[in-house]
Amino acid sequence: MSKNSLVVPSILPGFMELLPNEQLAFNAMIKTIQQSYELFGFVPLDTPIIERAEVLLAKAGTETSKQTYLFKKGGDDQALRFDLTVPLARYVSQHFHELVFPFRRYQIGKVYRGEKPQKGRFREFYQCDVDIIGKGELGLVNDAEILAVAYFTFTRLGLGRFIIKINNRKILSGFIDDLGFQDRSKELMVLIDKIDKIGEGAFLEEAQRLDLNKKQVDALIHFLKINANSSDTLDKLRKLKIENGVFLKGLNELEEVVKYIKYLNIPESNWKIDLSIARGLDYYTGTVYETILTEYPQLGAVCSGGRYDNLAKYYTDQKLPGVGISLGLTRLFYQLNELNLVNKIASTPTKVLLLPLTESLSETFDIATKLRLESIPTEVYVVQKNLGEKLKYASKMGIEYVVIIGEKELKESSVLLKNMRTGNQKKIMQKDFVKLIKSELENKDQ
Amino acid sequence: MSKNSLVVPSILPGFMELLPNEQLAFNAMIKTIQQSYELFGFVPLDTPIIERAEVLLAKAGTETSKQTYLFKKGGDDQALRFDLTVPLARYVSQHFHELVFPFRRYQIGKVYRGEKPQKGRFREFYQCDVDIIGKGELGLVNDAEILAVAYFTFTRLGLGRFIIKINNRKILSGFIDDLGFQDRSKELMVLIDKIDKIGEGAFLEEAQRLDLNKKQVDALIHFLKINANSSDTLDKLRKLKIENGVFLKGLNELEEVVKYIKYLNIPESNWKIDLSIARGLDYYTGTVYETILTEYPQLGAVCSGGRYDNLAKYYTDQKLPGVGISLGLTRLFYQLNELNLVNKIASTPTKVLLLPLTESLSETFDIATKLRLESIPTEVYVVQKNLGEKLKYASKMGIEYVVIIGEKELKESSVLLKNMRTGNQKKIMQKDFVKLIKSELENKDQ
Repeated sequence: MSKNSLVVPSILPGFMELLPNEQLAFNAMIKTIQQSYELFGFVPLDTPIIERAEVLLAKAGTETSKQTYLFKKGGDDQALRFDLTVPLARYVSQHFHELVFPFRRYQIGKVYRGEKPQKGRFREFYQCDVDIIGKGELGLVNDAEILAVAYFTFTRLGLGRFIIKINNRKILSGFIDDLGFQDRSKELMVLIDKIDKIGEGAFLEEAQRLDLNKKQVDALIHFLKINANSSDTLDKLRKLKIENGVFLKGLNELEEVVKYIKYLNIPESNWKIDLSIARGLDYYTGTVYETILTEYPQLGAVCSGGRYDNLAKYYTDQKLPGVGISLGLTRLFYQLNELNLVNKIASTPTKVLLLPLTESLSETFDIATKLRLESIPTEVYVVQKNLGEKLKYASKMGIEYVVIIGEKELKESSVLLKNMRTGNQKKIMQKDFVKLIKSELENKDQ
Repeated sequence: MSKNSLVVPSILPGFMELLPNEQLAFNAMIKTIQQSYELFGFVPLDTPIIERAEVLLAKAGTETSKQTYLFKKGGDDQALRFDLTVPLARYVSQHFHELVFPFRRYQIGKVYRGEKPQKGRFREFYQCDVDIIGKGELGLVNDAEILAVAYFTFTRLGLGRFIIKINNRKILSGFIDDLGFQDRSKELMVLIDKIDKIGEGAFLEEAQRLDLNKKQVDALIHFLKINANSSDTLDKLRKLKIENGVFLKGLNELEEVVKYIKYLNIPESNWKIDLSIARGLDYYTGTVYETILTEYPQLGAVCSGGRYDNLAKYYTDQKLPGVGISLGLTRLFYQLNELNLVNKIASTPTKVLLLPLTESLSETFDIATKLRLESIPTEVYVVQKNLGEKLKYASKMGIEYVVIIGEKELKESSVLLKNMRTGNQKKIMQKDFVKLIKSELENKDQ
């Protein structure tokens, strides 16, 4: 085939593809998230990436519809899922009579949004969702469990200090009602939601543009400045003496959730009440969450969610309240990688590399099989190169343990074990080798 | 929302979606496959599901093109990947200078084919691929390694006895040349490939229809009837005294691969030379594999592959020989499930279910946190129901260990541990509980 007719190998803009050392780091993060979710008894779910457009877009706004990948196949309008919540709602409605409630599920999968590609924005990205769905009702203890899942997950991801901010949308919306500002309540909530981003000055300006009067602005600022530990914040909210029913309901709910969070022993340094958190407009109806990496606030909220009164009203008459969070892994990984915070130590899962230096491969493969039977990832490097080049392969791949088997070793039934990190090497008898390397690797893991 | 305006919650035909107990079994299979692949030092890869149509279809025939999901987005012709080999070819060409060769990669992911949906045929399905790609050349030892990966994988999947059939396409095609049947060689290979399916009678009829003469048919039948252990088969092939160059090259290759397979200690009961294996027409150029579950031959080949001389000639001038296999997991799982061979014991990853019987939840959550810190998947069931109904939840979900914490237990700082499988229950002091259940679960795992 001549050069001219080659197709340029490239991927579409807005898609993330990783090199081996990055992919291994990415997969390690997925594994941590999955294990954390399973630790709380969430069941994995895997729904189709393609669904009927009618189903996926049942409740979608125009913005979502515009971004959705839509196409026809065999006469059907089909679409790629743009989140994991709509498929969950469809799944729970469809399999309602086969599921046991509360239904605790997690899903880690790719979703698709035809956004304008830009730095850190992806058209294909992983979401890692965890939700609890009740039948008819769902106790507030579940809102605390969801926060605990986020706490365990970020503790295990090891991305430094983090804080999970929690609020109840009823408090915010009740407070705005009580201010006498019902009419433009939504606009004001959107504004409050971004106070952290735009700063107090710009916030005040924009609040005035919404026609809040001086007294209203003062009350709002006073309210938003409540910033204390959870007990004091709840106290201060009580002392506002607001009698708006929605506000009081939200306050009672938050108080109950806080009680359970304390039962769950989540350190106060990792969560706090933040009265400015609103999380979008129409979706959430109670508790809302946002997770911030304290050392990298520029990343924004890396894991958010909340409670919704009725998950699946477009598909079923059953009332299905739920609460959950979502972690946008592709974006998070991209940002961490940009900040050089991704641990890219190896380009292979191989733990032990065997280097036979003679034509006689039988002993080498014998050792390889024994190591693999002990669940130790093992590779035999049989390319015709000199020892120096073979060792270079090991160091390029980030493999710590190299086993050299040459003439001398074959004669003695030994191997030469070289640690690429320390440079140490030692002779070991073949019969002792598997046991020795196994215990060395186990000690390292601990 | 009135009933009339509900959207029917359903998925498209040809897509597989599982219930929790099935999904857990499916994920366990994926985990086994992944671990087996990593045991041989294969690196995970995750490529976009959407790629440029031009790239994915560079070498596709009309049949593939017709089945491909194609659509336009922002002016680009885009497509969903229909296998994992084409994306691998594109990836290796694109990242050629960043990769270390031989490049050992595995990929487990969904692919899309708009086939006519029918029982056991899916439009979205998982492929689990493992390949080794060389730069310029790739030793035959890799063909043996690939067979070893398949052997480890199926041993660990625990689907009963299995046999990996191996052949070399050059032997078959050289033999046909030597018969003097070059002109319709392709048609004959297709026919030979299905001899197991159609039986000898139908095979003979169709062979005659291809205008093979009596002598040719006899020679072919004699050749295909060679059915012995690997050494004897190789001997018998040598004794045919065929001097065709392609045949001899194939025979030498197979002999070398067999030598390495023996070094790798793969039991002869799990692999054999089968001279009728051809695996399609144009793709493979040397070794070919097919895996059969001996107890369920009706499933056909569940894992197949082979060697190709040049992976990526449509994208690069670099010569990239490779060898690999692919396991079609969705179809395999579907078939196993139909045969009732899927182990669907639990509907949750939860190992321990805590049942508080009083309003006081603090101690229960305390225990839950301690169990989770020990990596034991734990759930607290706080729905307002009586004990009988709560126990029913545990047995529905397939949770073996239930911990009951009522008034009496709270007073004594104890718990009541009930084993749902045996029915046994015993009182344990709270301070001893975590250690005890941990060791019980560890003993069970072994």
